Amino acid sequence: MNSFGLSFRVSIFGESHGEGIGIVLDGVPQGISLSGADFDTDIARRSSGARGAAARGEIGTTGTTPRIEADEAHILSGVFNGHTTGAPLAIIFHNNNTRSTDYQQFSIMPRPGHADYVASVKWGNDNDPRGGGHFSGRITLPIVAAGVIAKKILGNVKVSAELIAIGGCEDRGKWQELLKATAAEGDSLGGIIECTVDNVPVGLGEPFFDSVESLISHAIFSIPGIRGIEFGDGFRAAAMKGSEHNDPFGECGPEKNGCGGANGGISNGAQIKFRVAVKPTSSIAKAQQTWNFEEGRIDTLRIKGRHDTCFALRTPVIVEAMTAIVLADLILR
Amino acid sequence: MNSFGLSFRVSIFGESHGEGIGIVLDGVPQGISLSGADFDTDIARRSSGARGAAARGEIGTTGTTPRIEADEAHILSGVFNGHTTGAPLAIIFHNNNTRSTDYQQFSIMPRPGHADYVASVKWGNDNDPRGGGHFSGRITLPIVAAGVIAKKILGNVKVSAELIAIGGCEDRGKWQELLKATAAEGDSLGGIIECTVDNVPVGLGEPFFDSVESLISHAIFSIPGIRGIEFGDGFRAAAMKGSEHNDPFGECGPEKNGCGGANGGISNGAQIKFRVAVKPTSSIAKAQQTWNFEEGRIDTLRIKGRHDTCFALRTPVIVEAMTAIVLADLILR
Amino acid sequence: MNSFGLSFRVSIFGESHGEGIGIVLDGVPQGISLSGADFDTDIARRSSGARGAAARGEIGTTGTTPRIEADEAHILSGVFNGHTTGAPLAIIFHNNNTRSTDYQQFSIMPRPGHADYVASVKWGNDNDPRGGGHFSGRITLPIVAAGVIAKKILGNVKVSAELIAIGGCEDRGKWQELLKATAAEGDSLGGIIECTVDNVPVGLGEPFFDSVESLISHAIFSIPGIRGIEFGDGFRAAAMKGSEHNDPFGECGPEKNGCGGANGGISNGAQIKFRVAVKPTSSIAKAQQTWNFEEGRIDTLRIKGRHDTCFALRTPVIVEAMTAIVLADLILR
Amino acid sequence: MNSFGLSFRVSIFGESHGEGIGIVLDGVPQGISLSGADFDTDIARRSSGARGAAARGEIGTTGTTPRIEADEAHILSGVFNGHTTGAPLAIIFHNNNTRSTDYQQFSIMPRPGHADYVASVKWGNDNDPRGGGHFSGRITLPIVAAGVIAKKILGNVKVSAELIAIGGCEDRGKWQELLKATAAEGDSLGGIIECTVDNVPVGLGEPFFDSVESLISHAIFSIPGIRGIEFGDGFRAAAMKGSEHNDPFGECGPEKNGCGGANGGISNGAQIKFRVAVKPTSSIAKAQQTWNFEEGRIDTLRIKGRHDTCFALRTPVIVEAMTAIVLADLILR
Repeated sequence: MNSFGLSFRVSIFGESHGEGIGIVLDGVPQGISLSGADFDTDIARRSSGARGAAARGEIGTTGTTPRIEADEAHILSGVFNGHTTGAPLAIIFHNNNTRSTDYQQFSIMPRPGHADYVASVKWGNDNDPRGGGHFSGRITLPIVAAGVIAKKILGNVKVSAELIAIGGCEDRGKWQELLKATAAEGDSLGGIIECTVDNVPVGLGEPFFDSVESLISHAIFSIPGIRGIEFGDGFRAAAMKGSEHNDPFGECGPEKNGCGGANGGISNGAQIKFRVAVKPTSSIAKAQQTWNFEEGRIDTLRIKGRHDTCFALRTPVIVEAMTAIVLADLILR
Repeated sequence: MNSFGLSFRVSIFGESHGEGIGIVLDGVPQGISLSGADFDTDIARRSSGARGAAARGEIGTTGTTPRIEADEAHILSGVFNGHTTGAPLAIIFHNNNTRSTDYQQFSIMPRPGHADYVASVKWGNDNDPRGGGHFSGRITLPIVAAGVIAKKILGNVKVSAELIAIGGCEDRGKWQELLKATAAEGDSLGGIIECTVDNVPVGLGEPFFDSVESLISHAIFSIPGIRGIEFGDGFRAAAMKGSEHNDPFGECGPEKNGCGGANGGISNGAQIKFRVAVKPTSSIAKAQQTWNFEEGRIDTLRIKGRHDTCFALRTPVIVEAMTAIVLADLILR
Repeated sequence: MNSFGLSFRVSIFGESHGEGIGIVLDGVPQGISLSGADFDTDIARRSSGARGAAARGEIGTTGTTPRIEADEAHILSGVFNGHTTGAPLAIIFHNNNTRSTDYQQFSIMPRPGHADYVASVKWGNDNDPRGGGHFSGRITLPIVAAGVIAKKILGNVKVSAELIAIGGCEDRGKWQELLKATAAEGDSLGGIIECTVDNVPVGLGEPFFDSVESLISHAIFSIPGIRGIEFGDGFRAAAMKGSEHNDPFGECGPEKNGCGGANGGISNGAQIKFRVAVKPTSSIAKAQQTWNFEEGRIDTLRIKGRHDTCFALRTPVIVEAMTAIVLADLILR
Repeated sequence: MNSFGLSFRVSIFGESHGEGIGIVLDGVPQGISLSGADFDTDIARRSSGARGAAARGEIGTTGTTPRIEADEAHILSGVFNGHTTGAPLAIIFHNNNTRSTDYQQFSIMPRPGHADYVASVKWGNDNDPRGGGHFSGRITLPIVAAGVIAKKILGNVKVSAELIAIGGCEDRGKWQELLKATAAEGDSLGGIIECTVDNVPVGLGEPFFDSVESLISHAIFSIPGIRGIEFGDGFRAAAMKGSEHNDPFGECGPEKNGCGGANGGISNGAQIKFRVAVKPTSSIAKAQQTWNFEEGRIDTLRIKGRHDTCFALRTPVIVEAMTAIVLADLILR
């Protein structure tokens, strides 16, 4: 099902090449000021091309597709006189610039790393293949809009995510160079995003199924292309001793933060901290050998069009949005 | 809330030092043969001491506490004439051997890595502190029992998890030595568990919120002490190029498995494969410096009793159970 | 929350005087043929004025407001090439003809029978009072649209509702006369709707919380203005003896149908049959004495505008839609 | 599924002739004092025989079966030192006195009014037929226990239900006579229960799907044997004019209460008031003609054992419990 959350619930709909893509937010408290301009910064951070690069403070514009999408949030309901009413808040982003390439070919020769194959098996001919249909990364656009509202609910609780590595390289100074070289090869790069949450109250989350880590990881793995998540010391914790990994309490709460902000699934007042692995963009210009289901043989696939060399550049604000959505739900329970 | 699942739903209850610990399973199909003996193998694999070590084929018995728990599954409802009826299936494990240590001290001087602090803030004096109360790792015992039933629902879909590293060491031959040395220091170790699922049908999961990875990670992070999860190439994917990480299709489906079994959140027929980082056991014999909330100063904490040197040894069957619960739910939808 | 259903879930949004009113349907099976014209009949049956009267086969047009609303279903997502894709299906009805009367007055002097008072207490100044805001009966319009899709899912299972009494009168021949007289008085009338479902498979529903009657009544009481529901013999059953009310089985299933189609909450193959009491329209032209919260005294309220004399005339298709939504959910589980 | 509620969620399990019958309550606030004795009054009100009659203040003991059930609430978890801890609260009632009659016969010749037939079609041979299995009215016993806790959550909000008619007779003075005569005929009687809730805060419930009436009716129709529910003026409203049925506001809120306590699905501060129709007990001593599925012919069924002449006598406390569960959930949201 396409909903998430208990007391603050988001429901997504739409296809990348249909009429539009949207989200319904249920459980938004009344009285939050909201206008279209509130979405600008976060939507720009998710954008491709020069607009996105500028919003993210990148040195060059290599790395994301120069293609421009219509990214204007259109509020359909739940806002009156510039404030939320408490009724369901629906937002739609209309699609345009949707030159429909011949996506049908991908059900014959599915793109490696894409959902073409599983979609054709699961939904057969009724799947909308245009632009990935309902699988499109464009669905993360209304998620970012929902994140803007979730952040308003969070108030002083601040969620920040940033890209800390591209293609294994943590030296920002070398990123443009790396991106250019990879783009020239017709290849793509992944990255690591680190997300932190400050001013977290003690007591969010529940033991077991509704642990802070359970809910955050659930939301994060909903973002297309995520391969891993780790909290605090993460995978390194598995190689540490208890005396190293344990977080003794000090005067102001946990002194280290090996756990990443939660004990027993419940926030302990320390910074929530986790890292997310983003895979390299699946669509690459480079020729790939894959199966041709029609002809029953290995065949050469060349994906046309202009794609992100590194979608991870655009992902931090989506990670923030998902995290804010989870925390808003926990705070409103 | 203490439930998980849509069509196959588990609800847990109980405290480690109360009357018992249990689980209610809703959505179990009728007609599955079930007897008490069906639980024996998996429960033994979760056990401590000699019983657990034997069930897991360990060379020695160092690593888990020699303390023996009452681990007999008692079916309260949902089974008639040796078969499930389709009605809710309730299982209880009665507690015994519960020498109540002075747990109240831990609300004054919370154990590093434990939920003592968050519980005392969240629930105050009404929390049951004995043995960790509802936070106890013992809650994973009914989860293992539920996993046994979930595995029966899965039929030919086989879930297997095993420990592949302890304290950073992947050489099994050295584990007993490492465990002994660490136990002698009064310290503890974590580990890495790898879980695979074979014979997965194409099409389990949904794009976005109900992706296979979202649901599995949600369930896995419900297990106390998990620090990270990664699918397929995992964190290494973030340093790979698209041409390396992508999974081209071959005659029999995906030829590599960089994604770990799902595209666009939906199983693609390849083996589901993920790794989980388990933290070192929080309770250690070694003295720890932590905050004394009553006296308002750093103090020395010595935790008495016999604890697991490496709880990760007992965790693989819990990872299997959680995974089976998720997949059973997806298959029954 | 504004969602309903487990496997077939509808989520509503919108205000009567905002941009529009809509619904998102999750869990729609793929491959159902769907075009805008499919909605015409049922939407016309819910319409006011001449259009509605014609669609319902009424003799005259007295009874509903002559005001014309924009009732065109606009599909935003989930349909491709004239068939559902399995992705969320969003439908919006844009609003027009929304002369905003001075609705603010109703928070000072709340209309008897309306939600003005509870809304002003619950949401204060952030409530959108125009046209009833999110409380508007217009929200039932997207419900009717969802019902059209639910009916397609039901296939051969046929849901039919009809008005069997107006203002206590079961003689259809006298209805126009009664409506005219009541309209002339500036007053309004309620009615009784009977709903039947034919070709119901045995086995829908669950004992207790998901009983057929529980789910249907839940959905029916979501329609504004419902005062009661009874199944089969209904309230008369309370005055019958067991030997009269019991349904003996015959060669073709239950021979009577005192229960209204379900035993133990589960459909028994007989016709599902229930009756619903609809209150008289709350907005009446007649002067009413009610409380003026600003002046702290009893005051005379005169509600302007043209309202339905008997909204129950328009309600049967809404009852059908709600019933079809419940049964589609049960069939898809 | 066998759960109900969002923030206060109950999950039932058990069969009448199995080990026991129980309930798990999730979302119980911490710090509520609770002991076994708290359940005594309400459980006695649900009891049969002399114990129940005394608790309900009946003149004689005719009307319910003299059979004595083990009705002792056994708390398994969620309570520590006489107070709730906030963890899931599990209660079990062990079964005894379960002379297993030959229930298997009822899958051949299903009892009119019972779930024997639907259960055999839905679950086939895996159904537990003993004593109605999971369909048993005995499942309402843990519901009553949950109601006791829900009432504690409600505090000053008081739920009271009473039987106002038996077999169509509202004159209490004649009930024992009527019950005796009906019992002598081997027949049974139904009744009408009226439930009121006082001191209701304004603002409980939501427009549409989570309306107060939707949630209450959902819960009430979960009780076996309910045929109808009506709020306020109920079915009579359908024959009233708007000017009669409307509730004008006075100095202290609504002056009449034609709506039964809610406008637009939201409590308006007036007394919540509804009536419930309970069918006559299905099991009667009188011979019934019904279908013999084995022999393919009409046959005579004689149901042995001692049954309630009028189960409605025992139902008011169950109606209270269900209502309290709904309101506790709404208050805790």
